Amino acid sequence: MKKDRKVVLVGTGFVGMSMAYSFLTSGGVDELVLIDVDKEKALGETMDLQHGLPFARNKIVIKTGGYEECSDAEIVVITAGTAQRPGQSRLDMTAVNANIMKGITENIMASGFDGILVVASNPVDLMTYVAWHVSGLPKNRVIGSGTILDTARLRYLMSEYLGISTNNIHAYIMGEHGDSSFVPWTHAYVGSKCLLELLDEKSKDLNDLNEIYHQVQQAAYEIINRKKSTYYGIGLALNRLVQTILNDEHAILTVSAYQEGEYGWHDMFIGVPAIIGHNGVEEIIKLPLNEVDQGKFDHSASTLKEVQESTIKPNLK
Amino acid sequence: MKKDRKVVLVGTGFVGMSMAYSFLTSGGVDELVLIDVDKEKALGETMDLQHGLPFARNKIVIKTGGYEECSDAEIVVITAGTAQRPGQSRLDMTAVNANIMKGITENIMASGFDGILVVASNPVDLMTYVAWHVSGLPKNRVIGSGTILDTARLRYLMSEYLGISTNNIHAYIMGEHGDSSFVPWTHAYVGSKCLLELLDEKSKDLNDLNEIYHQVQQAAYEIINRKKSTYYGIGLALNRLVQTILNDEHAILTVSAYQEGEYGWHDMFIGVPAIIGHNGVEEIIKLPLNEVDQGKFDHSASTLKEVQESTIKPNLK
Amino acid sequence: MKKDRKVVLVGTGFVGMSMAYSFLTSGGVDELVLIDVDKEKALGETMDLQHGLPFARNKIVIKTGGYEECSDAEIVVITAGTAQRPGQSRLDMTAVNANIMKGITENIMASGFDGILVVASNPVDLMTYVAWHVSGLPKNRVIGSGTILDTARLRYLMSEYLGISTNNIHAYIMGEHGDSSFVPWTHAYVGSKCLLELLDEKSKDLNDLNEIYHQVQQAAYEIINRKKSTYYGIGLALNRLVQTILNDEHAILTVSAYQEGEYGWHDMFIGVPAIIGHNGVEEIIKLPLNEVDQGKFDHSASTLKEVQESTIKPNLK
Amino acid sequence: MKKDRKVVLVGTGFVGMSMAYSFLTSGGVDELVLIDVDKEKALGETMDLQHGLPFARNKIVIKTGGYEECSDAEIVVITAGTAQRPGQSRLDMTAVNANIMKGITENIMASGFDGILVVASNPVDLMTYVAWHVSGLPKNRVIGSGTILDTARLRYLMSEYLGISTNNIHAYIMGEHGDSSFVPWTHAYVGSKCLLELLDEKSKDLNDLNEIYHQVQQAAYEIINRKKSTYYGIGLALNRLVQTILNDEHAILTVSAYQEGEYGWHDMFIGVPAIIGHNGVEEIIKLPLNEVDQGKFDHSASTLKEVQESTIKPNLK
Repeated sequence: MKKDRKVVLVGTGFVGMSMAYSFLTSGGVDELVLIDVDKEKALGETMDLQHGLPFARNKIVIKTGGYEECSDAEIVVITAGTAQRPGQSRLDMTAVNANIMKGITENIMASGFDGILVVASNPVDLMTYVAWHVSGLPKNRVIGSGTILDTARLRYLMSEYLGISTNNIHAYIMGEHGDSSFVPWTHAYVGSKCLLELLDEKSKDLNDLNEIYHQVQQAAYEIINRKKSTYYGIGLALNRLVQTILNDEHAILTVSAYQEGEYGWHDMFIGVPAIIGHNGVEEIIKLPLNEVDQGKFDHSASTLKEVQESTIKPNLK
Repeated sequence: MKKDRKVVLVGTGFVGMSMAYSFLTSGGVDELVLIDVDKEKALGETMDLQHGLPFARNKIVIKTGGYEECSDAEIVVITAGTAQRPGQSRLDMTAVNANIMKGITENIMASGFDGILVVASNPVDLMTYVAWHVSGLPKNRVIGSGTILDTARLRYLMSEYLGISTNNIHAYIMGEHGDSSFVPWTHAYVGSKCLLELLDEKSKDLNDLNEIYHQVQQAAYEIINRKKSTYYGIGLALNRLVQTILNDEHAILTVSAYQEGEYGWHDMFIGVPAIIGHNGVEEIIKLPLNEVDQGKFDHSASTLKEVQESTIKPNLK
Repeated sequence: MKKDRKVVLVGTGFVGMSMAYSFLTSGGVDELVLIDVDKEKALGETMDLQHGLPFARNKIVIKTGGYEECSDAEIVVITAGTAQRPGQSRLDMTAVNANIMKGITENIMASGFDGILVVASNPVDLMTYVAWHVSGLPKNRVIGSGTILDTARLRYLMSEYLGISTNNIHAYIMGEHGDSSFVPWTHAYVGSKCLLELLDEKSKDLNDLNEIYHQVQQAAYEIINRKKSTYYGIGLALNRLVQTILNDEHAILTVSAYQEGEYGWHDMFIGVPAIIGHNGVEEIIKLPLNEVDQGKFDHSASTLKEVQESTIKPNLK
Repeated sequence: MKKDRKVVLVGTGFVGMSMAYSFLTSGGVDELVLIDVDKEKALGETMDLQHGLPFARNKIVIKTGGYEECSDAEIVVITAGTAQRPGQSRLDMTAVNANIMKGITENIMASGFDGILVVASNPVDLMTYVAWHVSGLPKNRVIGSGTILDTARLRYLMSEYLGISTNNIHAYIMGEHGDSSFVPWTHAYVGSKCLLELLDEKSKDLNDLNEIYHQVQQAAYEIINRKKSTYYGIGLALNRLVQTILNDEHAILTVSAYQEGEYGWHDMFIGVPAIIGHNGVEEIIKLPLNEVDQGKFDHSASTLKEVQESTIKPNLK
């Protein structure tokens, strides 16, 4: 039987810990277990969080544990893996991290885990595929963080550009969490107003949108060059994803979800808008992409699929 | 000089008090002053709120006061007026409440008030006009609660119907806060997906939308028949409007805003989507209404304008 | 099997509804069911709350239901009963409300309810006894709101008097939720400093404390004279009690708890500081009262016991 | 003129950034400016936080800036300095950090800053003295983080030991934020019950308290050994201190405050319980220490004073 609002984090690097730490101020989680191959590291992180509990929004039971803690968890979040290094592309990390992911997923499933698996390790679309394949869990219950953070970056930059709250910017970044992602601009709205109409009305240059997307695409590199890695944005994005599941919100997030032809592709994970609730991915939203955007989607998907077939699948036998 | 996050409430009926009470759990307000013609009532309400402060999210200074308290307030919210009674239409209350509104606004302005005036007294579009006219404040700094609550009702019912979070339902109720309001359905989206396409894809009946709108339109009557008046929904709507201003969110809300031809009408207040921030109404969003919807807007506007010219204006000399 | 964070409210008067409404801004509850003998009233209240959900902190499922909804609830809160009227003492309501409480408790238990029962109907100490006796639940799982609100009022007034946050005022009102309650001043602290020493140091008059207690004792009457009844303070107090249980906080609140000699009395409920957690009353805190304070406790307890034996018990056979 | 709820952070290491990041989920700050000698680092951190804003509780303006940003800030928090390294004592860092602190404080004051200065750089008691001396600000407006975190650690461990919420553990760690700190156990309460009586009643061993204090004292070393440095606990402690000031809470926190004989010492900063509000340190709480505890305080104070006179003061001329 699952324990309500129990979350297990596998991997206590900066990404996972930024999510963990944020639960103290946001609330919404009742029990949080930290697992790491470096058990002493996990224990140190646990202590550091525990000492903040007197200032926390709600009581949370925080502890270090082994994989047996996954048995009654509602959600296990995997952030373990080699981090992206300056100059390194997300795809470069694939082979090493796929192997790590395989071992972790086996350990999680051996506990009898029967909840939702959230994957944030990079390259996230491929790692989510590994976790799904190895776990044997239903497709809706394995979710990659996908382009949630990319979409947040886009909305922040558009919000600054337009002078309108991020909550009223309805635009998505779709595709690979990486260089081949794209924005279907004809499906971008500000409130209920078409973005392209709004720009026209305000005599703004459409090229500004491409510049904004370019900034999003470069954001990770820009941050990594300055502070070695990026973790606060993704920490809050994971907090949001976890709470959307725990609260059964049925909210739309651009996660990496298993494809069954919604956008013309099968047997792979890629970033698409999806309704997220207590069952994980409740439904993928099918946007009618125009020819150009479908082309971008196909390019992004084929990039992932190629690595999946060449590098990932042979090692999953 | 204005005191940051100081809010004055004029009228301690259930609507105003539901907003006031909600600040204890939501936070976001630093000082709250209650004014009522019945000073003992205001004092009793103040005491009842104060006793909840040990459980409040943040410290708030709560007190009873006179109109001089408006002098350094950021926002004054007016909810005073005769309440809507079973069987009574919103327009029926007009003459009585216009007179009350005139007196209140004069008192507020006599204090030297120089902030944002929020009006929730009914009929709200007309009362906002009175407050604006009497106050002499710039048009952006007088805001009626308009169709914020109607829009919330619509989103709640659509959320239940579609199984999708209210946060991803982007649809507005526009026009009079009353029987002539309407939904421009072609400007309704779920996430970034056109609502009409979504219904088609799911083989849902378009008539269901009319039924949902009908329920929204009848909601106030249904609640009033059962509990005499409606106040929790509007209490939270006002909390949201006040916080949107105080936080300078630049978020879109369907407030009653002064018209300068955005939808073809002038010198009146009516519910339209607008960007709300520290300056009040920062900008009205112009949706390109189709012919049918523009017709509904015109009908709603002319209904208001007629009463404004016949009943309101003669008394504002 | 219980549904996590499901709360049922029996009685949709102002007290119960003020608690219910506050959950929309505080969060912490996942499902809220409203029950009332007047089913239409309960439905109207449900609709009014639902329309505020788009502004709520978290998703909450809110609905009207019958007693069968209690079967999988974690907590049932009873606020039903005849309200205290101007001039009426809390004890006057006893006979009428005891009968109502008996019927409600039987209905709740018939559903198979197996959670925590919170009673706020007045006179609360006696009504909690009725609910406990009729329900057959273990003593720790029936809790009266006791002197939580009285204690909050005390802390608010002391906070204003001393210029120190309510969070650092550690003082309790004990005994009957009514005229015979009292403050054991020798057990009052500000931070870790003895209150009596602090007053001495600041040359403040000890009589001020009696005046503060007097104001607390009169607070309900003062408010009722001005606004007919008191509900916001108690609404937040109930929110706090419910969340303390749901979050398993093990926090100290002055609830009406079953006595087994902790303060010299047995087989009755009266306001004492107790540790509240997932099991309800985890433990009663035994303060070593001095002779004067024990005398006040005995007076308060005997007042309740007398009515219990004469008016309540004969009707519980 | 100060901008309400504007906070400037000087030093974007892990301690400062953990505080900064926590504001996104806690709310309570309207503008946050990051300053660092490494401007690119500050910019990278700013970007990482900005991308989390779409998930933040409230809108916050976050940016990188120069010291001129301090001119209208309500609070400047200094966390800059060489971090404590494995094996290094807090006092070892003194000379290096005093020089850094001097330069930073001069830069802040040159902007025309007129708010509250919060110091968290170690050794914190001495660095707070430097900041106060160099700034020329009134004593109440320079505050060191002192033993806030130590006290939180104590409360967390006692909460686990006693099974009672941290909110009901009223005990302080006083003295140097370092090895000579101590707990005045006779001034420790659980709710309003004397801790020593409670332990006696529960037949618990008094030596357990010493073991708990020992764990607190070793906590920083234990964490540093495992994760190189400690920042989440102190990040939340600083969040709490900043919000206590901004909200004018008049709450008691064990900050490093300027001494004027309250505990027998003058012209130095050391950790004592103090009432914190909009004016910074509103008042120091004078606990009547017994002889043993006063001895510990004197030992702690003399340790600090010695370094202050020998190492700090000669360089402040």
